[in-house]
Amino acid sequence: MAPNPHSLRSETDALCDLARWCAARGWVPATSGNFSVRDAVSGRIHISRSGLDKGLIMPADLLELDAEGHVLSGDGKPSAETGLHVVIYRDRPEAFAIAHVHTIFNTLISALCESTGHLDIHGYELLKAFSGVETHAHHERIPVIANSQDYHTLARELEEALDVHPRAHGVLLSAHGLYTWGTSVAEARRHLEALEFLFEVEYHRLASEIRQSDLGAR
Amino acid sequence: MAPNPHSLRSETDALCDLARWCAARGWVPATSGNFSVRDAVSGRIHISRSGLDKGLIMPADLLELDAEGHVLSGDGKPSAETGLHVVIYRDRPEAFAIAHVHTIFNTLISALCESTGHLDIHGYELLKAFSGVETHAHHERIPVIANSQDYHTLARELEEALDVHPRAHGVLLSAHGLYTWGTSVAEARRHLEALEFLFEVEYHRLASEIRQSDLGAR
Amino acid sequence: MAPNPHSLRSETDALCDLARWCAARGWVPATSGNFSVRDAVSGRIHISRSGLDKGLIMPADLLELDAEGHVLSGDGKPSAETGLHVVIYRDRPEAFAIAHVHTIFNTLISALCESTGHLDIHGYELLKAFSGVETHAHHERIPVIANSQDYHTLARELEEALDVHPRAHGVLLSAHGLYTWGTSVAEARRHLEALEFLFEVEYHRLASEIRQSDLGAR
Amino acid sequence: MAPNPHSLRSETDALCDLARWCAARGWVPATSGNFSVRDAVSGRIHISRSGLDKGLIMPADLLELDAEGHVLSGDGKPSAETGLHVVIYRDRPEAFAIAHVHTIFNTLISALCESTGHLDIHGYELLKAFSGVETHAHHERIPVIANSQDYHTLARELEEALDVHPRAHGVLLSAHGLYTWGTSVAEARRHLEALEFLFEVEYHRLASEIRQSDLGAR
Repeated sequence: MAPNPHSLRSETDALCDLARWCAARGWVPATSGNFSVRDAVSGRIHISRSGLDKGLIMPADLLELDAEGHVLSGDGKPSAETGLHVVIYRDRPEAFAIAHVHTIFNTLISALCESTGHLDIHGYELLKAFSGVETHAHHERIPVIANSQDYHTLARELEEALDVHPRAHGVLLSAHGLYTWGTSVAEARRHLEALEFLFEVEYHRLASEIRQSDLGAR
Repeated sequence: MAPNPHSLRSETDALCDLARWCAARGWVPATSGNFSVRDAVSGRIHISRSGLDKGLIMPADLLELDAEGHVLSGDGKPSAETGLHVVIYRDRPEAFAIAHVHTIFNTLISALCESTGHLDIHGYELLKAFSGVETHAHHERIPVIANSQDYHTLARELEEALDVHPRAHGVLLSAHGLYTWGTSVAEARRHLEALEFLFEVEYHRLASEIRQSDLGAR
Repeated sequence: MAPNPHSLRSETDALCDLARWCAARGWVPATSGNFSVRDAVSGRIHISRSGLDKGLIMPADLLELDAEGHVLSGDGKPSAETGLHVVIYRDRPEAFAIAHVHTIFNTLISALCESTGHLDIHGYELLKAFSGVETHAHHERIPVIANSQDYHTLARELEEALDVHPRAHGVLLSAHGLYTWGTSVAEARRHLEALEFLFEVEYHRLASEIRQSDLGAR
Repeated sequence: MAPNPHSLRSETDALCDLARWCAARGWVPATSGNFSVRDAVSGRIHISRSGLDKGLIMPADLLELDAEGHVLSGDGKPSAETGLHVVIYRDRPEAFAIAHVHTIFNTLISALCESTGHLDIHGYELLKAFSGVETHAHHERIPVIANSQDYHTLARELEEALDVHPRAHGVLLSAHGLYTWGTSVAEARRHLEALEFLFEVEYHRLASEIRQSDLGAR
């Protein structure tokens, strides 16, 4: 577990800043979405409480959990999706920050790709925003898992997706949203911005019926 | 009638905040839209006056009405749609706040569904933002009523739609806009954000001609 | 000429506020667009100078012109389109404020309708934002004139369009932009917001190939 | 080399303001994009350092380079694309400011036009935002070059594109982004705003299957 060089204090501030930024863009509508950091020293998870308008989140709105997701301190109730954060931190030891958002385009593209089970993205310069990726020729495969209200099932399927796709930088839940992460809040934010940009571009590309050959005929 | 635990003062502040937020997103263009709360103690309605740019609304811009919609105090003229707020409060005793907005996507999708008489939405995680809904497998049916300038007719059709669809969380007026409500301004806002998100997603889905089978063939 | 009840000072302030608001929405890209008011007392025109980023406009950036468009005072050069403001004020004696913007959707829909020579809009509640319109059943016909760099030709064609369509609330220049006006800045803004909303809705409707019958078959 | 009349100090301030404005619009997601000015006196280049969130950029985040791109002063690492700025300044002696952004629409349209090798735009009033263009009848041809991680190849292809298209106001890198420039930051910004507006309009036009003849049949 590579220690995150940032202090817990600066990471929780950065996390709340990211959540408010997402709220301003409409990416966590109707109190949806959740955000967490893992303390590099203690291994404890600090996660947004359930039911909060993320446009108003402050560090005091984070709950402190142990590595298994039990609440240690903080006011309010953990989100039902807390277990998914626990799975990601366990399966991705390098992850110290997680963002989960519901956007127009991650909702559309995840529903579109549910039957295929994944979304393949390649050829875009912005793929280089992903850690470890050095070229637009990279093939990123984002697993898409079926949504469920049975969080044990969902946690198991998320774990399986993470294991089968060890190099994926995010996981989509069908018609639900995106989970992405990073070694710091800054990296999780970079992955989030890049993935949402690419979902929007790919959705437009798939939705349009433009063929390159049409353009040659102008 | 479950009493709203929030004070009238905090609810009128929250209502004006919601209206200004809608204005910033372009959801109440050209002085359209209106917003109200019902006082849990007196049963009186506090509603935005007619013709106001909602980006500038303050609590002093609200008119006080009795439960039948007669003006008791306040400057300015009530909106012609005041009677629709009265119908909703009468038919939904749990409602203490109402939002009415004109958005690009509620305009498009309501016009599209006018002949069918309703819009069905299911399968989205964000459906859980609706009070009483626990799963994305929920089927939400939003009634769509024809627009009219005869407000008696419109009020009667709204009442009928509310009676026929007792579990609906909103009503669309064709090529006009959305009415939604909640037990508090916070809940009405959550319903509003969720509905508008889902209208945008559904409109894109219907407008595109992507078929999941196409994607398999990539 | 019905006197505008607002003072010149408050109208020039409101005009600059409107221009900055348009800039924030991307409606006057690349220093495009222009805005003016007519003083109800003197009949003089106060118009934004050429080449200015409208996000930064202040009343000192307005030029004072006589009713024929000759510069009386102010720094900078009048826009080449000043003559079009003169035509509108002459042809619409009730107009005391004019806005001209270049938006994605007025550009797209004006190009689409150039050959037809007009855009017809009807059935939308937001049509009631236009002065003198009481019902969504109103038919608004917006003339679309061909763009030209010959401003004498353009002024003549604008005048003809205004004469042929005496009840129109705006004029589109093909692949160029919208001119709209009002008895005050507030009314011009209401017309502008309503027209741009309706252009966006109509463009989406025309661009999609959704047929209502498709929806019945879901 | 026409001297830029603005001081280096005011140009670096304006450059950072432009970069932050682009960040607010989502045009430089995930720390992408870069921005530079050339000092009219010394010929030195001042360019944003690599890996920075452009929403936070300040003049202290600029590196000073000589005309060949060697770092003279400043903290941090130059972007891998610094060599492309060097090429543009060498090939376009009138250029004193460069902006490079990744937007949804420049990504989509550059990918669409890669095989053709250019994007032709004509007929739009906003073409007049380009320096030296006096009419919407102007034909602007924007070269589109294939993306590459070999920056020597990319620099050579960029140079060739600039030579072959001496009057182009920008160059697209396929599925990557736009480079544009100006005699000052203000002009580079005007070119940037106009190009991005036109990319969005043209992409919508190409993506829709509306034919003008369809409209006549309404």
